[in-house]
Amino acid sequence: MHDDPPTREELWERRTELPLFYASLLFITGYAVRVLAPRSEHLWRDGAGLVVLLTWLCFIGDYGVRLVLSGGRPLRFVRRHWLDTLIVVLPTLRPLRMVKVHDAIQARRERPRRGLYQRVIMYAGLSAVLLGFSGALGVYHQEHQDPHSSIRTFGDAVWWVCETLTTVGYGDVTPVTPVGRLIAVGLMVCGLALLGAVTGSFSSWLIQVFRQEDEEEPPGNRSSPEAP
Amino acid sequence: MHDDPPTREELWERRTELPLFYASLLFITGYAVRVLAPRSEHLWRDGAGLVVLLTWLCFIGDYGVRLVLSGGRPLRFVRRHWLDTLIVVLPTLRPLRMVKVHDAIQARRERPRRGLYQRVIMYAGLSAVLLGFSGALGVYHQEHQDPHSSIRTFGDAVWWVCETLTTVGYGDVTPVTPVGRLIAVGLMVCGLALLGAVTGSFSSWLIQVFRQEDEEEPPGNRSSPEAP
Amino acid sequence: MHDDPPTREELWERRTELPLFYASLLFITGYAVRVLAPRSEHLWRDGAGLVVLLTWLCFIGDYGVRLVLSGGRPLRFVRRHWLDTLIVVLPTLRPLRMVKVHDAIQARRERPRRGLYQRVIMYAGLSAVLLGFSGALGVYHQEHQDPHSSIRTFGDAVWWVCETLTTVGYGDVTPVTPVGRLIAVGLMVCGLALLGAVTGSFSSWLIQVFRQEDEEEPPGNRSSPEAP
Amino acid sequence: MHDDPPTREELWERRTELPLFYASLLFITGYAVRVLAPRSEHLWRDGAGLVVLLTWLCFIGDYGVRLVLSGGRPLRFVRRHWLDTLIVVLPTLRPLRMVKVHDAIQARRERPRRGLYQRVIMYAGLSAVLLGFSGALGVYHQEHQDPHSSIRTFGDAVWWVCETLTTVGYGDVTPVTPVGRLIAVGLMVCGLALLGAVTGSFSSWLIQVFRQEDEEEPPGNRSSPEAP
Repeated sequence: MHDDPPTREELWERRTELPLFYASLLFITGYAVRVLAPRSEHLWRDGAGLVVLLTWLCFIGDYGVRLVLSGGRPLRFVRRHWLDTLIVVLPTLRPLRMVKVHDAIQARRERPRRGLYQRVIMYAGLSAVLLGFSGALGVYHQEHQDPHSSIRTFGDAVWWVCETLTTVGYGDVTPVTPVGRLIAVGLMVCGLALLGAVTGSFSSWLIQVFRQEDEEEPPGNRSSPEAP
Repeated sequence: MHDDPPTREELWERRTELPLFYASLLFITGYAVRVLAPRSEHLWRDGAGLVVLLTWLCFIGDYGVRLVLSGGRPLRFVRRHWLDTLIVVLPTLRPLRMVKVHDAIQARRERPRRGLYQRVIMYAGLSAVLLGFSGALGVYHQEHQDPHSSIRTFGDAVWWVCETLTTVGYGDVTPVTPVGRLIAVGLMVCGLALLGAVTGSFSSWLIQVFRQEDEEEPPGNRSSPEAP
Repeated sequence: MHDDPPTREELWERRTELPLFYASLLFITGYAVRVLAPRSEHLWRDGAGLVVLLTWLCFIGDYGVRLVLSGGRPLRFVRRHWLDTLIVVLPTLRPLRMVKVHDAIQARRERPRRGLYQRVIMYAGLSAVLLGFSGALGVYHQEHQDPHSSIRTFGDAVWWVCETLTTVGYGDVTPVTPVGRLIAVGLMVCGLALLGAVTGSFSSWLIQVFRQEDEEEPPGNRSSPEAP
Repeated sequence: MHDDPPTREELWERRTELPLFYASLLFITGYAVRVLAPRSEHLWRDGAGLVVLLTWLCFIGDYGVRLVLSGGRPLRFVRRHWLDTLIVVLPTLRPLRMVKVHDAIQARRERPRRGLYQRVIMYAGLSAVLLGFSGALGVYHQEHQDPHSSIRTFGDAVWWVCETLTTVGYGDVTPVTPVGRLIAVGLMVCGLALLGAVTGSFSSWLIQVFRQEDEEEPPGNRSSPEAP
């Protein structure tokens, strides 16, 4: 009885997991090519745009199929699969799901509670990296042709993203176009929340490590007075 | 016995809730019109100023009536209704009360403990948005006519508020007038506290979600070794 | 038996409390006059310097007397009275002790656990204000005569302190002299720790308030289904 | 039975502890000399480079010997001795081990749980200082000869590190070379995590201190009403 046959939803997830992971890599590559290719390379740019569109449709289709297979109650599905819902809106976050699958495999073998903080750090950190990369592409796309902009190269955009996500904010390079600033605000808010989660979890993890070291102290060090 | 007739205070609250919510929207709109209307539009500016004044008087009046209806002990009233006291001083925060009423309705139907962190995030986030909007209006009002100022448009002011509340602080636009800087300091301190609360709660919520996923693990994944 | 006669240490503390509080106000005023008075006002500057010196000697003397009265074991005294030790080094923090005395009086009347987070916020916030004021005076003293400095008035120095303590850091005014930068680094580190404590406590307090509101929910709202 | 003879691993650690601590000081000094010595001083620069290389080899050798002595299972060794693994990669962090040894000696004499937060603050703070010093040397090395750079002296680099680690980020001095910016990003991320840990622990410690003071309240203050 404990070895239930997998539901149709689980079967679908198992079969689509790997193809969709590759699709997400394609999506990110396509987006990067679309933005970073010079204006004259029409073929590359159009092809990349098509790839982005097609892979996005894959994600939306997958979400729809699973919503149907789960059998009604869409609100519950959305709440239970909040990560998947987010991925449909921002497909650059798709690689996060890979971490989740890896976690699930680990959880089947090890005890599940181990490394709660590490997993939060990994998730939040990876989200920050993926969001930061998307943000750098988006801001570069908006800014690099504006005459007043200080973001000239993609390297500048990456540097700007790093100083923004960590809230350092030197201000040596800043967006000036309205859309660039809109992306920047989104990035600031997400970065604040995600890196706050990383920082908080790191702090909690550090305290946990120190506490464990106290308890794991080899008995030879302390047990002397208790020995007969 | 369990179905107490509502007290006079509760009756007053029920009847004034919706009118006062609309009054708060009027207040914010009036304040925005007052600040953003061009100098030449005397009629608009004076009318908006009047609306701000009248709605403010409504809030003060409502607070006074409820203080009287609560029957003595003003200090206890102020402490118990700290949000309302704050709203009398800063009426732009009034929409927060709507969230509270919505919460109370939800609490009557669901179990009250659910979503503690989400509610803190929602409250603190909404406060930050409302304070930020008021701050942007105030700083724009003070700065946009100063010859040395870098805040020229309302868009600049909003961008400045976003980089201030998230403590990024590029410094590409900064207030230079004394009153503008005073508003800025107030915004920094509130922003630090509110966004710290958002960040901290988000971090706690994320850890909670991960912990729950550990516990909600479908039994088919782990129970095999325990099965007979 | 419960009404022990006060020890000699306690008697000394009771008698010196108020005079030393006034001395601390004198110290801060003297320091401010010393820094802010124009160069030509020799009399004011010298007088203020003397006041600073004398009040500082009072604090050192008080600390010495109490160390002796406590009867040996200086290390334990230093650890137990960490706030007093800090005050001897940085007498601008002295007003913090007043808060402590006030707390102790409150603790005798009310239940002591109440308002843990509020007290941390109050202490850390007041420390930040006192440190910030001292830092603004110190940086203004170092910077306002340097030809490359952007800190020209005391108002600039206060504005700089605010953006530094909240880690916003626009960079529109920054110290350029070595001593000014040294004070700035001290301020950054203290500000980070103190405002981190304020933010963290505010966040915890907010969560506590929300949790209490859940529990204080008037019974008429929820008990209906449980009623007979 | 409680007085086990030390294992070969423990004997090795005891004998190498002090020499390796001196080696780490040599490493840091050598690195500093290598970077700060003027270009013309070939002898000093080459000697310092040699010292850096030799001491680094010592650390790698020590790690290898202990890995072998621990008897197999390298993965468990790496996880258990995570600090040592980090030190092999970044030898400037070596002095952290001294703190650990000191802690271990303290733990043998006192009760081990005391001062959890203080130790986290000390570790994370010392790591931040050591990383910051290395980062200042590295960035100075990369930047001070670039014509567009604003980091001209080692003092500028230290000032830049301080405003970066605390996330203030004035932007008056910023790296412009790609390698300088890479070091900066590493520093921002580490700084955020480490100072977040310092801030969080300081906040927790402060709350703990306040809570303890409540409990340590002298009984004469409160027990009166309970007395017969």
